[in-house]
Amino acid sequence: MGRVLAEDIRVQRTRKDVTAAALDILLRDGWSAVTHSAVAKASGYSRATLYAHWPSQLDLVRDAFSNYQQMPHFEATGNLKRDLQGELKSFVDAMTEFHLDRALAMLSEKSQVDEAITPIRDSFVAAGESPIRDSLSNKFDAEQTEALTLMLCGMVTHSVLMHGNPPSNEIIDRAVNLVLAGMRA
Amino acid sequence: MGRVLAEDIRVQRTRKDVTAAALDILLRDGWSAVTHSAVAKASGYSRATLYAHWPSQLDLVRDAFSNYQQMPHFEATGNLKRDLQGELKSFVDAMTEFHLDRALAMLSEKSQVDEAITPIRDSFVAAGESPIRDSLSNKFDAEQTEALTLMLCGMVTHSVLMHGNPPSNEIIDRAVNLVLAGMRA
Repeated sequence: MGRVLAEDIRVQRTRKDVTAAALDILLRDGWSAVTHSAVAKASGYSRATLYAHWPSQLDLVRDAFSNYQQMPHFEATGNLKRDLQGELKSFVDAMTEFHLDRALAMLSEKSQVDEAITPIRDSFVAAGESPIRDSLSNKFDAEQTEALTLMLCGMVTHSVLMHGNPPSNEIIDRAVNLVLAGMRA
Repeated sequence: MGRVLAEDIRVQRTRKDVTAAALDILLRDGWSAVTHSAVAKASGYSRATLYAHWPSQLDLVRDAFSNYQQMPHFEATGNLKRDLQGELKSFVDAMTEFHLDRALAMLSEKSQVDEAITPIRDSFVAAGESPIRDSLSNKFDAEQTEALTLMLCGMVTHSVLMHGNPPSNEIIDRAVNLVLAGMRA
């Protein structure tokens, strides 16, 4: 039992080190730089170990993106306005602190030319949207939730990807106030 | 005078043929495929002509994007709700008919790694947003216009780039009704 646990911990550590190195290379040098030899070198593991756990380059890239699962989210309070404003600001923070802007731009661009990337983009985007979508779906129907999720998340992604900078806190607060006033009306 | 005019027309035709060929290559084969020799071959002009008018690859790419200036927009009626809904649907149509999704994804991704692309992205995005922004700024202050533009354009770009499909007409109509109800409230 002790040996199984030690083995487990070792595998988890390998996984953490390798995917962190892969993400680092992805964000710094781009998609095609994420090779088994570059990640082996950066993480200090052998290429044989990497090939055993991640047979293809796509496996390395997919798991590189999974690092974003540990990204901090706003802790929901149950107050819809506060939760939406808080989560949208966390989303903005992640754009700069965790290079989420780069991750999203690469995923959306690559998905257009390689359909093997689409499921990676889709699960990444669904995970990112889920706190906003969950807060909304507690109060509104499916179509309302969809319209509001696209507008609120879209405000952030459009601003960051198309203008090169995030919306200010004032714009976020105003946008949330506006759509909630619209829902009450 | 006749000769000057003929010269003018010839330059304009060259310009049109070459930038159309460059855009075609850009959308089909990607950014790095837009070379002087590929565009010369596709457009039927000599490389010398191309170098004379477009000294760098960036010049070719910039003018390839300028083809979108002829993209159809919704003809404004003065009714804010109808104009916003109409223009957002034109925006959605352009995503599929003119591969605007591909153009936006490439511009946003490339701008992150090459600041020479940023002014091309910025003027492209500003031109795309302007009918929405103009309709809104006739009625609302600068901060309201900014929040509404980001949410409404963002609804379309987020949906297309992050989900791989545009918002339905029902979602667009609902979103516009919602933000206008919020503004009245």
